[in-house]
Amino acid sequence: MKPHGPIPPGYAADRDGMLLIGGRRADVLADEAGDTPLFVYDAGMLSARVAEWRAAMPAAVQLHYAMKANPYAPLLAHMAGLVDGLDVASGGELKAALASGMAAGEISFAGPGKRDRELEYGIAAGATLNLESAGEAERALAIGARLGIVPRLAVRVNPTFDLKGSGMKMGGGAKPFGVDAEAVPALVARLIDAGADWRGFHIFAGSQALDAAAIAETQAQTVALAADLATAIGRAPPLVNLGGGMGVPYFPGDTAVDAPAVGAALAATLAARDPVLANSRFAMELGRWLVAEAGVYLTRIVDRKTSHGETFLVTDGGLHHQLAASGNFGTVIRRNYPIAIANRFGGEPYAPVSVVGCLCTPLDRLGDQVALPRADVGDLVALFQAGAYGATASPAAFLGQGPAREMLV
Amino acid sequence: MKPHGPIPPGYAADRDGMLLIGGRRADVLADEAGDTPLFVYDAGMLSARVAEWRAAMPAAVQLHYAMKANPYAPLLAHMAGLVDGLDVASGGELKAALASGMAAGEISFAGPGKRDRELEYGIAAGATLNLESAGEAERALAIGARLGIVPRLAVRVNPTFDLKGSGMKMGGGAKPFGVDAEAVPALVARLIDAGADWRGFHIFAGSQALDAAAIAETQAQTVALAADLATAIGRAPPLVNLGGGMGVPYFPGDTAVDAPAVGAALAATLAARDPVLANSRFAMELGRWLVAEAGVYLTRIVDRKTSHGETFLVTDGGLHHQLAASGNFGTVIRRNYPIAIANRFGGEPYAPVSVVGCLCTPLDRLGDQVALPRADVGDLVALFQAGAYGATASPAAFLGQGPAREMLV
Repeated sequence: MKPHGPIPPGYAADRDGMLLIGGRRADVLADEAGDTPLFVYDAGMLSARVAEWRAAMPAAVQLHYAMKANPYAPLLAHMAGLVDGLDVASGGELKAALASGMAAGEISFAGPGKRDRELEYGIAAGATLNLESAGEAERALAIGARLGIVPRLAVRVNPTFDLKGSGMKMGGGAKPFGVDAEAVPALVARLIDAGADWRGFHIFAGSQALDAAAIAETQAQTVALAADLATAIGRAPPLVNLGGGMGVPYFPGDTAVDAPAVGAALAATLAARDPVLANSRFAMELGRWLVAEAGVYLTRIVDRKTSHGETFLVTDGGLHHQLAASGNFGTVIRRNYPIAIANRFGGEPYAPVSVVGCLCTPLDRLGDQVALPRADVGDLVALFQAGAYGATASPAAFLGQGPAREMLV
Repeated sequence: MKPHGPIPPGYAADRDGMLLIGGRRADVLADEAGDTPLFVYDAGMLSARVAEWRAAMPAAVQLHYAMKANPYAPLLAHMAGLVDGLDVASGGELKAALASGMAAGEISFAGPGKRDRELEYGIAAGATLNLESAGEAERALAIGARLGIVPRLAVRVNPTFDLKGSGMKMGGGAKPFGVDAEAVPALVARLIDAGADWRGFHIFAGSQALDAAAIAETQAQTVALAADLATAIGRAPPLVNLGGGMGVPYFPGDTAVDAPAVGAALAATLAARDPVLANSRFAMELGRWLVAEAGVYLTRIVDRKTSHGETFLVTDGGLHHQLAASGNFGTVIRRNYPIAIANRFGGEPYAPVSVVGCLCTPLDRLGDQVALPRADVGDLVALFQAGAYGATASPAAFLGQGPAREMLV
């Protein structure tokens, strides 16, 4: 038997043992959606999460939502009403961000492979481009000149440090992201000389960390780096995007980030910052932390079978919607995401079962020998932490099964 | 510097050093498609591959195409005209298979999570269902009775052996696929008693093996298992689907399967088979081996940059189209797929570079410190073995970059 990750707080069952999402029964939601598999996102939990962040962080720090975590339009519109800015990573995301109601001036566009037409779209829209290289800077300046628009340009910095314990390191050593720190002052000087509207720095050292002390240390390094760069440039950045880093507990033994501790440390870091940054604004850019816990993936059991003594629950979902949960996206060792039988939520574990998807590949495993209440054909399986990097971070067309349904409740 | 996998045979450049695909210049194909990234599939290579298989294998053995490898409609229609049957893994694939021109009677439908509506669709269409469990069998029989149609039913067998050296083991021990061998005779008796049209066995022990001897040994075990089951049942299976297994060379040091050796061994196995199988037909079910080499993924360099001494070529493609090539799908250790600069094909390597995609994630690496000819913005990168498990086996919606274009030439 293998453990599964912790069920996020805030989920409960009604008196029938049916999982409630946004106060509504999982089976009713599936009926309302028309079919499983289905992603349900809880708008109230999203709002509460943003409020939790604001309560923990210094009031002056802005919150940006990195929409790559979940671009589902109703969710994005909800988030746009809660946060101070959106971070996009493609022309497609920029289009969706503009449609969400967020002001173009509060949208920033990062990504190492921006094409000319994407740079043009961003400049014309009035978004801030987080420049990833000197070459991209020249292309953006040329496009701005051609359009007769002063481009809003920030510089993404490849920091010399990384975020310790992060699931995804974005800084430290040779990276395709951003401009090596030592080359940044000259590049900013070039932008200013060329008449661009220099917006500041984007410094992203890593993501999916759970250790508040490591996040705090990285934020302190980030502020120090921004100060050093500002001193070298001789001008303060209007905005320092401190990146993200705050992760969520996916696996057995994982515990939630101590957000108040991160906030307290950040307050101390900002209070003690170099005077060169006195008038700079600061922002954090979060994706997963904001939306993962508010999402549940519901899939129905199609078959229950035994092979050589092992019981399998075969579902109508799978890795085509939950690639990361299947252990096939950015992880080396497969471990179980938080998982439950939605219609026996909180019930006593019966025996270990393996929950697999409907795809004809051994990679398609959603729960490996996990202890769950007895379940059979027609029952609903719930996978948690499904609000981030689910539907769009999975191969939805694989084996012709089609995309999942999504709903915001 | 790290090596890359072997460029498949049959690719060459014109006098300008431009890669030719189906005799046509890669740059012209990209222009014709309208943009990169682009998958190009060479119809002539697909035909030649089928001919290679037929020349190697005993004439009596049928060839099925497992369309999960590549369901692109023009390619599927081309394959339908070349092979003896199609194997599908969902209702969506069945629909595409029927649209390809393949006769319903030559289509078989496997997959552990078939929903009732998919069983009904398959039975009504006249396809053969490869049953994955006793429960699925009962559902299929009930649906056949309700529809007043005699269902065409085969039994997928979970063999007691696996395919040695295969990248993907589908047999041996507890598996979600098929019915454990010892339970098969009773299930087949049940099907026959219930009046179903029993079509035989589907026995799939693994895929992506390169060792002809291992494949041959597995095929011999498969034929022996089919004979044992037929003896126990007291009736010969009309068809024994021997599964696939033949892989392609992705990585440095990989060599192509010796198809004539597989064919010679299979001929010997069939010549010596138990008389109970004298009147049975045999089929192999191949996906990757048939289509991978005929596909090339073309992506354009958007930026060339240096970070801490490492050179990066940033492309407009990425893991959203080439998840497996990025090392994030079913592999533990990332190694380089075959890769080249399409417009300097065969040119002298200049220096090691890392080829990355346009996604804002460190997972998005298509070539890690590979030696390639000098390349710059606007040049085309070609990834090979892109005909299988590319476009549909990747998270196309990730980060809003959108799907790749595809064309058959």
